[in-house]
Amino acid sequence: MPPSFQYECLATDGAARLGRLATAHGAIDTPAFMPVGTAATVKAMQPESVAATGAQILLGNTYHLMLRPGAERIEQLGGLHRFMNWPGPILTDSGGFQVMSLAKLRKLDADGVTFQSHHDGSSHRLTPERSMRIQHCLDADITMAFDECTPFPATPAQAADSMRLSMRWAARSKAAFVPRPGYGLFGIVQGGIYPDLRAESAEALQRIGFDGYAVGGLAVGEGQEAMFATLDVTVPLLPADRPRYLMGVGRPSDIIGAVCRGIDMFDCVMPTRSGRTAQAFTRRGTVNLRNARHQDDPRPLEEGCACPACRQYSRAYLHHLIRCEEILGAMLLTWHNLQHYQDLMRDLRAAIGAGRLQAFAAEAAATEALGDIPPLG
Amino acid sequence: MPPSFQYECLATDGAARLGRLATAHGAIDTPAFMPVGTAATVKAMQPESVAATGAQILLGNTYHLMLRPGAERIEQLGGLHRFMNWPGPILTDSGGFQVMSLAKLRKLDADGVTFQSHHDGSSHRLTPERSMRIQHCLDADITMAFDECTPFPATPAQAADSMRLSMRWAARSKAAFVPRPGYGLFGIVQGGIYPDLRAESAEALQRIGFDGYAVGGLAVGEGQEAMFATLDVTVPLLPADRPRYLMGVGRPSDIIGAVCRGIDMFDCVMPTRSGRTAQAFTRRGTVNLRNARHQDDPRPLEEGCACPACRQYSRAYLHHLIRCEEILGAMLLTWHNLQHYQDLMRDLRAAIGAGRLQAFAAEAAATEALGDIPPLG
Repeated sequence: MPPSFQYECLATDGAARLGRLATAHGAIDTPAFMPVGTAATVKAMQPESVAATGAQILLGNTYHLMLRPGAERIEQLGGLHRFMNWPGPILTDSGGFQVMSLAKLRKLDADGVTFQSHHDGSSHRLTPERSMRIQHCLDADITMAFDECTPFPATPAQAADSMRLSMRWAARSKAAFVPRPGYGLFGIVQGGIYPDLRAESAEALQRIGFDGYAVGGLAVGEGQEAMFATLDVTVPLLPADRPRYLMGVGRPSDIIGAVCRGIDMFDCVMPTRSGRTAQAFTRRGTVNLRNARHQDDPRPLEEGCACPACRQYSRAYLHHLIRCEEILGAMLLTWHNLQHYQDLMRDLRAAIGAGRLQAFAAEAAATEALGDIPPLG
Repeated sequence: MPPSFQYECLATDGAARLGRLATAHGAIDTPAFMPVGTAATVKAMQPESVAATGAQILLGNTYHLMLRPGAERIEQLGGLHRFMNWPGPILTDSGGFQVMSLAKLRKLDADGVTFQSHHDGSSHRLTPERSMRIQHCLDADITMAFDECTPFPATPAQAADSMRLSMRWAARSKAAFVPRPGYGLFGIVQGGIYPDLRAESAEALQRIGFDGYAVGGLAVGEGQEAMFATLDVTVPLLPADRPRYLMGVGRPSDIIGAVCRGIDMFDCVMPTRSGRTAQAFTRRGTVNLRNARHQDDPRPLEEGCACPACRQYSRAYLHHLIRCEEILGAMLLTWHNLQHYQDLMRDLRAAIGAGRLQAFAAEAAATEALGDIPPLG
């Protein structure tokens, strides 16, 4: 019998929760970070290497996959897990966020969005029903409701209109979603930075009823303070027996702050994208390996890190690869950054379990403030 | 005690030889194919993955490494093996071939070559003595004598002048090379497509005395027939107790033909470069995975191949990665191509050991002539 889609809270520390989410393709320890596998690949990584960092769930993008190679093609080939050789859980976004960011190439109406492919200009359409169908084809363990990601800044009236459209689409998403054991559908709270709109949205979603609740429309330029303030008023309105997902977040300090506020799931392109642009995340902040200060440095990027970039190579070598624009540079730094994010999530889970999350957060902030190790004498 | 640099012939089959070459960083089973690690990385591969294909020795490029990151820098960082995390044997070229191919950016004189970096136009100089010094800094198990790669086509007079210059440089290379246990220096036979010049060169090199003998100046446009004809007249003139290396070769059929003529070692960028341009080598010839015929094909690239591209993915997925210009496409196809080359070398060694090389060569040619598997009905 396939497992039911179920969230279990194992421990709390303040608002933070240690939990476990069971899905059709396996369980996820939360708080969890989901590496982004936009086009059915976590860029520059083999999936077994992604798993080796500790990642248990990936995110796939409906917008990219519907255009290339096409949702029905992936379904025909056995679903996204098989297509990309990732046997674990997958969450897919609804396509809404990417379509909205196309700006002039898309046209919004009450029923959905018509847009042009950024590849070839061909015309496509997404509605709540089509988004549900695509995510079903992809065989996503977690399907996201189709929504409009409210732009920032937005006036209260703009944010309200946008949020209410998303709530109507959320109801249509629920109606169109085909329930299966172990598969879940998440609603997305919108409302910009306005607490009353967030409350209205959280209530509307719960009336519809979802397997999990995401907070959307953040990390779009409002800044960490406004993001945390919005979480402070939104998360307490979400049901305790369902997982909570902060979409598109973020830097390590964003994640730590959001976990402290009760968020269970995250995704962000930052570790992978930074890995292709010479930026490495370490406990002592980010390190730009393109900088010539590293060219003679025999030390590892980060002492004690289990990733191959740190275990097997010097900073001098990583710098060399980046300077020569070698693919291996992108491979190793992506791996390191994903390892750093998964190590952070593991440490956060351990801290919650031990009831010392506040101390962990303070230590992490103090260590990051130290900055990179000094250059060699 | 470090091993001595020693070639042992274990079996012969016609002119072909099954052998073993001991070096400071380990032994190599011959005939051997050396993946090219130009800038201290086999492009798009982790070194442990290169080793997993069966490769026992890599080639590094003096020209690229002297410019970036610099030979003395690599020496300071513990040598090329440690720098790039390849504990096995490494052969470095002399820089001659790459410098000659710079055309207008280089000026040849009797003593050496002055050239401009293709990166920043800075001026550099290579002489036999400097090439030996650089390869010593890199800690190459096998150092190549500094030579001029004779252009093709060349008149007999041009080829003779060029070859004799290389022979003078070979003597200077031998004088400048610092012998160490387990480390060897190879001379390079030149002379274009002219048998008398090849004979003169082979004799000149043996008077100097080298640990191995390379055949240079081939695979530069003369065609397979002329290349084999040159091997037919050159290889018998080389000493039986030393390894023989055909530089820069080649396609699988080139390698098979050269092994049949007594060559022990090969290098070529073809498997790695093709892996980054969607070309896959299979027993049934090359397959262009960019072709849309693969987009719905659930079958592996090559049935029975042990590489991850074939074990874990469909042709449809590989096609998708290439169409999306995903780094994982280059990673997987490079791995497959290196696996194909190493499998070929393993099969060649087994065929020589079993005394059935001619039958193997005929089967390989017949299988390649079949072409790729037919599209799905």
